[in-house]
Amino acid sequence: MVTPRTMPGVLELLPREQVAFQRMIDTIRRVYETYGFTPLETPAIELTEVLLTKTGGETERQVYLVQSTGAAAQGAEPDLALRFDLTVPLARYVAEHRHRLVFPFRRYQIQPVWRGESPQRGRFREFYQCDIDVVGRDHLPVAYDAEMPAVIAAVFRELGVGPFLIRINNRKLMRGWLETLGVEGSRQVEVLRIVDKLERDGPEAVARRLTEFGMERVDDLVAVLADQDHTDPLELLPSGSPSLEQGIEELREVLSGLALLGVPTDVYRVDLAVARGLDYYTGTVYETTLVGHPEVGSICSGGRYDDLAAHFTDDRLPGVGISIGLTRLFWQLRELGMVGEGLSNVVAYVTLMDSEGRGYAFEAGNRLRRAGIPTQVALEPDRLGRQLKYADRAGIRFALIAGTEERERGTVTVRDLASQTQTEVPLDDLVTHLERGTK
Amino acid sequence: MVTPRTMPGVLELLPREQVAFQRMIDTIRRVYETYGFTPLETPAIELTEVLLTKTGGETERQVYLVQSTGAAAQGAEPDLALRFDLTVPLARYVAEHRHRLVFPFRRYQIQPVWRGESPQRGRFREFYQCDIDVVGRDHLPVAYDAEMPAVIAAVFRELGVGPFLIRINNRKLMRGWLETLGVEGSRQVEVLRIVDKLERDGPEAVARRLTEFGMERVDDLVAVLADQDHTDPLELLPSGSPSLEQGIEELREVLSGLALLGVPTDVYRVDLAVARGLDYYTGTVYETTLVGHPEVGSICSGGRYDDLAAHFTDDRLPGVGISIGLTRLFWQLRELGMVGEGLSNVVAYVTLMDSEGRGYAFEAGNRLRRAGIPTQVALEPDRLGRQLKYADRAGIRFALIAGTEERERGTVTVRDLASQTQTEVPLDDLVTHLERGTK
Repeated sequence: MVTPRTMPGVLELLPREQVAFQRMIDTIRRVYETYGFTPLETPAIELTEVLLTKTGGETERQVYLVQSTGAAAQGAEPDLALRFDLTVPLARYVAEHRHRLVFPFRRYQIQPVWRGESPQRGRFREFYQCDIDVVGRDHLPVAYDAEMPAVIAAVFRELGVGPFLIRINNRKLMRGWLETLGVEGSRQVEVLRIVDKLERDGPEAVARRLTEFGMERVDDLVAVLADQDHTDPLELLPSGSPSLEQGIEELREVLSGLALLGVPTDVYRVDLAVARGLDYYTGTVYETTLVGHPEVGSICSGGRYDDLAAHFTDDRLPGVGISIGLTRLFWQLRELGMVGEGLSNVVAYVTLMDSEGRGYAFEAGNRLRRAGIPTQVALEPDRLGRQLKYADRAGIRFALIAGTEERERGTVTVRDLASQTQTEVPLDDLVTHLERGTK
Repeated sequence: MVTPRTMPGVLELLPREQVAFQRMIDTIRRVYETYGFTPLETPAIELTEVLLTKTGGETERQVYLVQSTGAAAQGAEPDLALRFDLTVPLARYVAEHRHRLVFPFRRYQIQPVWRGESPQRGRFREFYQCDIDVVGRDHLPVAYDAEMPAVIAAVFRELGVGPFLIRINNRKLMRGWLETLGVEGSRQVEVLRIVDKLERDGPEAVARRLTEFGMERVDDLVAVLADQDHTDPLELLPSGSPSLEQGIEELREVLSGLALLGVPTDVYRVDLAVARGLDYYTGTVYETTLVGHPEVGSICSGGRYDDLAAHFTDDRLPGVGISIGLTRLFWQLRELGMVGEGLSNVVAYVTLMDSEGRGYAFEAGNRLRRAGIPTQVALEPDRLGRQLKYADRAGIRFALIAGTEERERGTVTVRDLASQTQTEVPLDDLVTHLERGTK
């Protein structure tokens, strides 16, 4: 006998939680599709040679290697691994199929990824990422960078997570700005890593660390970064650096695109303190947080990159994308009590109290199913109380009761388990009654 | 530079094929939900101790072992593996969470599984299974066995795969029948393996092999099995075995349930030649094939089992379930020319010919998106011909054109790329026009 259990670090859901999770995926997918993105799935397993080109250090140590039992028995080295994000598989896919794709290529991808993290509260070894990217061939206008916050805004509005804020910055701007302050090359990455902690640790701590790092004119930088209430922080910036000027211009274009796309002005703002330490991004960057829940951290981030697949092809493939780590987000919303065990996807439960009622129960069930209403029919006669308890525990909204009296009258008693009220309706009106009830 | 490629034995789809695949998943999921099943997902990675309890031999050699790079560097033995079906994870899930589930527990699960098969045409190492199961605690009435063919019939009708046939048999019946013919114990499994090839190899070959195997009264068996035109093959069976009688009774109950569920009589039949060699099933068994395409083989199979999770718990958990191997089915339908590169999920493409038209194009796009119509808006002015070609290659049905004249008139020209016709409609009528066009 083996103790049934999962490996540590996975989020396995009970049925009603799974329904809530599935609804979130459906919502994200619907919004992604509404904005003109097309679905893509890639295999979970990739060749290690393909998967590990771009990575090193920390990420590489966290990859899951894969090997068939047959290959392992022959003593071969694993040459397969599970994807750890959706970006490397996208790069491989676009490079491999580039002659059969149309550009700009707009895909959404909602699939799990795996990382061999040390088990830790709120950290998962298998988790869903929900990504969109637009990839151009040779070039991709900055106008595409404005679409991303529009999609982010629509997703989180539809998910109903409460107030959120999309903060937008530009790496060219930051690069140029740091140049004017005498910070060049790889030292910029270090400075951005320190700046990234501004919100968490406050301006004094950041200023001290920058000074320790050897940066001069620290106050010029920190004063602007810390001025979060300015209506147009771009006006606070110095002039004279071409990269800075271009960054400002790109940001202004993103802002005008957001206005054209009708994105409400209270869900986004330029924030020069959004640094995104990664080397990967080269232009616009995004970071989304829940207002009032700083402990949740980033719920969606992304940005513009110059070349998606330099390791796979000489073709230049610039793009822009965002990613939502859904498993972690779901877990955190559950911790906050904002999602959880809601209603089942099954809407109606047809009870059965005696074998003679079977034909009538099936007739009711068949009608509901033909109308597309998710319905379970009891297949074994049982006491009504037990059946109502079953339906209630399963989270099914409506229990349908057809005893001898209802059958004689050609009706069904519809019991709303949410409101604990019930109504007797003619069998012919059952479908419209439930359709109205679930609106 | 690394050559971008997947491992052999995976089916990676181009965008328009992916849309077709996604539509099949959506259809299967909708039907499963309509019949009152609730979603479940389990982790791709399970502990080897959990995963490999029930298997041995061939299956075990085909499992993919998993190990983080960190654990591999420490020289540890892999204790993780990828699931090779959805049944073992279901057994583990139900056993682990049984005190928090309601029984009968009805779940659908649509997820990939992995098997380290030798690469071969039409065999995949990563493929989707689409399963439903009903699991009872202690008992589960035979009435549930009738639901499965009803769901199968609805799925394949909705998928539009053309005529199909669900063949139903019962292992108790077969066991009892073979006992009356003097075949007992493990010899029955061998006989069923031979009988399973009846359709492929014909009655003579099967009769010869059974005689070679040492079975007596072979003709009594083969004559009944080969009589595929009898209206009620159950009448051809001998009497006198309790197991045979019980099997017949169960099959009759399944048939009467199918009538109550309104399943058309031409999509199923009792077929005593459906043996399903596996030891796993203990009662009703199902096998579904496409009429006119025997080369495709089984497209959906399943059956009744006595105890799902005997390796994990002493609780008895009988159930019944079916499985569709969707990746293989998709591949075969594509080979037959029945699915392929259809229309994109994106319905409308708003073209842009000059920067001055940007606001108007966005206005059109915003209206369509607010109405839930998947819409891509061109973000870079370009020649109309190139944009129409892009939309056509992407499989987008409608291209929307708003040049200076349309803008002055407050209209949009809607070009249907499928029929190569176009209409000019007022901007205010755009949503209803496209909604009508996609009905």
